[in-house]
Amino acid sequence: MGITVVSLAKGIENETQQTMSQVLADELPDVSPQQIGVLYGPSHAEEVAQGRPTTVVAAAPTEPRAEWIQHAFMTERLRVYANTDVVGVEIGGSAKNVLAIAAGISDGVGYGDNAKAALVTRGLAEMRRLGLAMGAEVRTFAGLAGIGDLLVTCMSTHSRNRYFGEQVGQGRTLEEVETEMDMVAEGVRTTRAIRALAQRHGVEMPITDAVHSVLFEGERPDNVVDDLMTRSAKREHWLPKSLKS
Amino acid sequence: MGITVVSLAKGIENETQQTMSQVLADELPDVSPQQIGVLYGPSHAEEVAQGRPTTVVAAAPTEPRAEWIQHAFMTERLRVYANTDVVGVEIGGSAKNVLAIAAGISDGVGYGDNAKAALVTRGLAEMRRLGLAMGAEVRTFAGLAGIGDLLVTCMSTHSRNRYFGEQVGQGRTLEEVETEMDMVAEGVRTTRAIRALAQRHGVEMPITDAVHSVLFEGERPDNVVDDLMTRSAKREHWLPKSLKS
Repeated sequence: MGITVVSLAKGIENETQQTMSQVLADELPDVSPQQIGVLYGPSHAEEVAQGRPTTVVAAAPTEPRAEWIQHAFMTERLRVYANTDVVGVEIGGSAKNVLAIAAGISDGVGYGDNAKAALVTRGLAEMRRLGLAMGAEVRTFAGLAGIGDLLVTCMSTHSRNRYFGEQVGQGRTLEEVETEMDMVAEGVRTTRAIRALAQRHGVEMPITDAVHSVLFEGERPDNVVDDLMTRSAKREHWLPKSLKS
Repeated sequence: MGITVVSLAKGIENETQQTMSQVLADELPDVSPQQIGVLYGPSHAEEVAQGRPTTVVAAAPTEPRAEWIQHAFMTERLRVYANTDVVGVEIGGSAKNVLAIAAGISDGVGYGDNAKAALVTRGLAEMRRLGLAMGAEVRTFAGLAGIGDLLVTCMSTHSRNRYFGEQVGQGRTLEEVETEMDMVAEGVRTTRAIRALAQRHGVEMPITDAVHSVLFEGERPDNVVDDLMTRSAKREHWLPKSLKS
């Protein structure tokens, strides 16, 4: 089977819009893409270090490779599930940081849990739309690397991206918040990359567009969130066709 | 179209395992089941009263009836979506209270956000399994009345059911916590009803079973949550077939 390379880095390369496994495949010419896997899922590092129970997803292009990674990382407290949908896992784990900024902006402008639940629900639908356009499997977004990771990132007080969005929602600029924080909110850069991917694949991502307009186009956060929440409601038209029975 | 009856009550009747719209149909012989709708979704009452943006789902057996309810309740701040999947909306909105107790138990035994994300992800899958067995549509569980309502209930500090579970997870008995709380945690009774529905429809609901065993069978919460978190992981086998592409 040869060596296995596992990426723990998240995000999308801005210039190329490549996922981390694609970047590794480019940068490691002696390694076949078949040998490259990723580890994603709802796993705040602090809690993993404390030995608190955590579940993650090991994704690789083939089942034997995914299971090899699964067994390499599995412990009593870190439960690893195998998945062969690498792109789905990578898109879910990257887009969630943009949605966490959106959830934070909603908190920052003074909206509550009801509004945030609506944003996260629609956010899951928009990350799934992008993933499906890129060849991902729908079930990945219903699992740990999709909804699981999304909800821990959007709800948790540990989340840097949610905190960043909250500061922006309170009226501070991108530059002010970036200067203050001693950690990087990776979702800021991912916002540009996910938006570029959405445009390339012809996918509507209104929440990502809204975050982009606040961070990079000078839109007022309260206007943008208000617009997202109050646009003409009818059926839940953002649900993808593949889930309509 | 005749009068329309809208239930705002949640839960399942314990003796009959009927949903609220089914109870109303029994109790109101002069009203046809076609005239009965429900309103569900991620909507903490406190936030609705404060005028904070909220989205909910109006469900009724026919589209004109669902849209009539939608328009009756819609305001600038309360956005109402129409749905004809009454049973799906009712099962999602009831089962979520059992899962919120499970999330609370996980918090109470000292697990973190990672564990809770795993529980909620699997919980969504098990409520969807029950709903599908009862004739619900899969997309309902991907929307506001499914994942939206589930996450606000499991994550929010407002949630009585989550708080109740947290107390139980810290080692207090059902009776102790019920005596202390001045509000009812409806999920306690719903646990019996959802478990009975699962048995009747032949659906596996391991998290509901775990909550039942803690509340009514004297199992230790730490053992039960530990068992749920550490059972043999392989693929995310709890994902329903209908989501497998």
